[in-house]
Amino acid sequence: MISEIYDVIVVGAGHAGCEAAAAAANLGSKILLVTMNMQTIGQMSCNPAMGGIAKGQIVREIDAMGGYSGIIADKSAIQFKMLNLSKGPAMWSPRTQNDRMLFAEEWRYALENTPNLDFFQDMVKSLIIENNKAVGVVTSLGIEIRSNSVVLTNGTFLNGLIHVGDKQLGGGRMGEPRAFGITEQLVSLGFEAGRMKTGTPPRVDGRSLDYSKMDEQKGDEKPQKFSYSDTPKLTKQLSCHIVYTNETVHDILREGFNRSPMFNGTIQSLGPRYCPSIEDKINRFAERTRHQLFVEPEGWKTVEIYVNGFSSSLPEDIQIKAMKHIPGFENVKVFRPGYAIEYDYFPPTQLKHTLETKLVDNLYFAGQINGTTGYEEAAGQGLMAGINAHNKVHDKDEFILNRDEAYIGVLIDDLITKGTEEPYRMFTSRAEYRLLLRQDNADIRLTEKAYHLGLAKEERLRNVEDKISKSQELESFLRETSLKPGLINPILESIESNPVDQAYRASQFLTRPNITLEKLDEIDSIKEVTSQYTDEVREQAEVNIKYKGYIEKEKENVAKLSRLENVKIPEDFDYIKLSSLSAEAKQKMNKVRPKTLAQAGRISGVSPADINVLMVYLGR
Amino acid sequence: MISEIYDVIVVGAGHAGCEAAAAAANLGSKILLVTMNMQTIGQMSCNPAMGGIAKGQIVREIDAMGGYSGIIADKSAIQFKMLNLSKGPAMWSPRTQNDRMLFAEEWRYALENTPNLDFFQDMVKSLIIENNKAVGVVTSLGIEIRSNSVVLTNGTFLNGLIHVGDKQLGGGRMGEPRAFGITEQLVSLGFEAGRMKTGTPPRVDGRSLDYSKMDEQKGDEKPQKFSYSDTPKLTKQLSCHIVYTNETVHDILREGFNRSPMFNGTIQSLGPRYCPSIEDKINRFAERTRHQLFVEPEGWKTVEIYVNGFSSSLPEDIQIKAMKHIPGFENVKVFRPGYAIEYDYFPPTQLKHTLETKLVDNLYFAGQINGTTGYEEAAGQGLMAGINAHNKVHDKDEFILNRDEAYIGVLIDDLITKGTEEPYRMFTSRAEYRLLLRQDNADIRLTEKAYHLGLAKEERLRNVEDKISKSQELESFLRETSLKPGLINPILESIESNPVDQAYRASQFLTRPNITLEKLDEIDSIKEVTSQYTDEVREQAEVNIKYKGYIEKEKENVAKLSRLENVKIPEDFDYIKLSSLSAEAKQKMNKVRPKTLAQAGRISGVSPADINVLMVYLGR
Repeated sequence: MISEIYDVIVVGAGHAGCEAAAAAANLGSKILLVTMNMQTIGQMSCNPAMGGIAKGQIVREIDAMGGYSGIIADKSAIQFKMLNLSKGPAMWSPRTQNDRMLFAEEWRYALENTPNLDFFQDMVKSLIIENNKAVGVVTSLGIEIRSNSVVLTNGTFLNGLIHVGDKQLGGGRMGEPRAFGITEQLVSLGFEAGRMKTGTPPRVDGRSLDYSKMDEQKGDEKPQKFSYSDTPKLTKQLSCHIVYTNETVHDILREGFNRSPMFNGTIQSLGPRYCPSIEDKINRFAERTRHQLFVEPEGWKTVEIYVNGFSSSLPEDIQIKAMKHIPGFENVKVFRPGYAIEYDYFPPTQLKHTLETKLVDNLYFAGQINGTTGYEEAAGQGLMAGINAHNKVHDKDEFILNRDEAYIGVLIDDLITKGTEEPYRMFTSRAEYRLLLRQDNADIRLTEKAYHLGLAKEERLRNVEDKISKSQELESFLRETSLKPGLINPILESIESNPVDQAYRASQFLTRPNITLEKLDEIDSIKEVTSQYTDEVREQAEVNIKYKGYIEKEKENVAKLSRLENVKIPEDFDYIKLSSLSAEAKQKMNKVRPKTLAQAGRISGVSPADINVLMVYLGR
Repeated sequence: MISEIYDVIVVGAGHAGCEAAAAAANLGSKILLVTMNMQTIGQMSCNPAMGGIAKGQIVREIDAMGGYSGIIADKSAIQFKMLNLSKGPAMWSPRTQNDRMLFAEEWRYALENTPNLDFFQDMVKSLIIENNKAVGVVTSLGIEIRSNSVVLTNGTFLNGLIHVGDKQLGGGRMGEPRAFGITEQLVSLGFEAGRMKTGTPPRVDGRSLDYSKMDEQKGDEKPQKFSYSDTPKLTKQLSCHIVYTNETVHDILREGFNRSPMFNGTIQSLGPRYCPSIEDKINRFAERTRHQLFVEPEGWKTVEIYVNGFSSSLPEDIQIKAMKHIPGFENVKVFRPGYAIEYDYFPPTQLKHTLETKLVDNLYFAGQINGTTGYEEAAGQGLMAGINAHNKVHDKDEFILNRDEAYIGVLIDDLITKGTEEPYRMFTSRAEYRLLLRQDNADIRLTEKAYHLGLAKEERLRNVEDKISKSQELESFLRETSLKPGLINPILESIESNPVDQAYRASQFLTRPNITLEKLDEIDSIKEVTSQYTDEVREQAEVNIKYKGYIEKEKENVAKLSRLENVKIPEDFDYIKLSSLSAEAKQKMNKVRPKTLAQAGRISGVSPADINVLMVYLGR
């Protein structure tokens, strides 16, 4: 029926699938995106927001690479916040609230306007594998579609089982059918599969809430955005609200614990530790008398509200009864209760750094199927799977981002090296070099690579080059400009910083904790120059000056470790015969098959002694 | 869990459910709208268009009654056409192409902004019936929700079975789960259930079509709209295209006949006769060498195309192979194949004129569950079910539209009197008084009724009154104004109409076939007056003058028949004991239980002799 042989078939059109399809298509591959329902492309299945701590950095990395998530998040944003501005720049994290329907629409329109990208609506039931290579899919209608590679991004749909209290429903999301067949086929081929769990809170009717009892959370006064491209900044924003649970709420929720699938043994699989259900929080932090909830609007025009922090699989009557004791929720009307969902995943140690599976050639996994949680983590993997599927089909080099280059690199290296037994979420603490992996410099880190891949347009590269040269220019100016005590002391005194008795360079003042470039702008001769630069350039120069010492130290560490990174281990290396290795190291490395000594060192259970053994053996 | 006792629970959020919920809520009832998926409220499951012949009249009737379909169709329109303008005004039918996504969004936002209207996302599995009265529903999560009445609008979801060639999939629409439980419960209560079939064509990628080989069909130069309210008129429009199948296409399609569920006996249920599948058309009209197809865009921004006229449940490979021989479709890429769907319906003779079931009190059916096809038919029924559910719960009178008042009246009277064994579609030919039931006067026919019900706002009533008085004023002017030969003859001669040799009234010229009010406007003294009136008022006055004789004759017929309409038959009338009735009449009337002699006369199998017997018995 479909005679075309595609370069890549992408199965699933969530965050991972959409980025994979877009990237490979933009690189020039012929792509088919297969989804169960074309009306639900680019759904935000859980919270109507993008970014946040470490995740916002990933969105900016995707954008710097020429991916779409940042652009689409900007276009559908209803609020922007730069989180953690009171901390160091490694922690600054952009986050948007988004209009759920608009986000999905923008994804669909973006994909429809991507050349080389075809669509087909059907459920994929199995893969076509020939000579140990993925060469197509078979749909529920029995349609065979051929390709040179396949990217699986099935999200929570593989044998999805929804739990609400003691009730269970098959489904990939509430109200949508689940998918089946793929897990069974992959297991028969030797893949290891597991079950994971995630959950989502109730959706409620905003008209039934009393916001006067909640704290309003406005967006930033000067909203920024994700994309380094020319997406518009928000000119109006919607507010979120903060409320807290209380002991009455907790007591009512506890009444349902014996009917909870989490506590009565119905759900055995692990859920996201850092995005726990409300019952989990009450159980694990019994001493806490309240938990924070974010009351988030779902869009510009809808009254639907997402109750962030109240994820639950308790019986629906308990959920609602408890909610009514949250301030402002006394008369709450519920659109649907929260629920938990169990689904199949494949432990990601079965993957290469390219996200290709080790067992089957030209088969790639991205997103929740790899045991991750989060839109941004999924999108980042999708992007990388799309790039690598394209590159492999066109006999090009693998494209891998290192841990010192991108959170996406940390994410994938963590997944394939350490595996994960609970839904993996990104944090700044997972990155050794987080001062290098900032939200402000993702373009500087990645756009040139993306340009050489063919994914970022020349205009993006020019913009980055311009940003670099301008920020160096501004940095030089600040490093060369002396400020006499008469000029600077009034400023220092106004913020209770020690005055100086001789002239110092402007840059030297900037290294003081309280002194920002904005403060120095109170000096006319400084402002005259700095005001000629964009906010982005100013931020870049300021961070480079303020954190120079820390940044250079991290760079040194990278250099040290890169020596180990450069020691490659042959793919078919026989760990078992190396008798000096510990038994655990043999077993783990045999499973993970690290590509470099550095990667081997990151495997839990592999000791520095084991690394030494390997280093000697490999001739260093 | 949901403690509120609703006045009305509406099950399903398609065209019928949305109108039912909106109407009852606007009348002041507390409404709960239950849908399997809040993302798919107001879906256009089939073609992205509203209105058309007879259906456009229904949309205008719904609008005149204060329903939402007209407003939403206007807001989401991408093209407007007034069909049949070359025929008499009874045939003029407004039709829009619509943006599918925008249409659904507008419905959702409209409902969210309707007070008294709550939402819940879940599948209804059964009804709560106590003392033979519908008093709530039970969902798939086991949640009981209480109400004083229930409106079922399940569309194609009840035990939905999708067919593509010899493959079958359970589903309510492609990619969406089906519903079950309700049919079984109703049958156990004594309801008769049946199966019907409908189908939908493939959706294709507009980027893959060559429009230069098709005929462009633009929208009207002066686009009108459905709503009598102040919705905006289109200022830009998208075009459709027309193409034709050919014998090659037919030959290829015939190759699949032995694998067609329609022809090999898999599907026994009847499909919509007047919206047949392409294989049906080829089969039934074997002598025709081509069939017309409309290539319809699905929205302002999407590349998705609806291939109107190519509905099919043939194997997908045959569908695509055949399509590629349609001019301009040589390289067509398919988003999804066409399919047929079988679903449960309940023969509508089991309903009262209010759409309440005869068997269970306060239970109403609307839409495809009654064996109809079409968004407009569904919406019209939904509106009436919503009004009557509200009225009954609040001890108000039944609200029934007669056959001489509205197509909606014809529709419901046909359904409950004659039943239907194939999906019922409205046509102008089904209305005895179609010259009375015009698209231009739906407001004049219905808005006052809607105002007294409480559904149309006072502003709408004032607008109608103003339209009536203005059109009477203009009519009087035209009836009183004489036109001398010197003035009128040049116009008559220019269109080859016989000149006159004495003065006649302007109205007398208007009764000539070729003479329009626009023509008369070529006379300055006429234009000076008529140009002060809106297009709507001018149309009204012109139609009233031009078709006065026909209209009056229809009104006489109505009056004659209304005598029979006034002869009520008691609800518990015992037909069986009336020995002079024919056996068939006894049986049919016993089943239908007509409310009036006129309705009895419309039952197929009831003869004028039977009516005479009844008339004598009832004391006339």
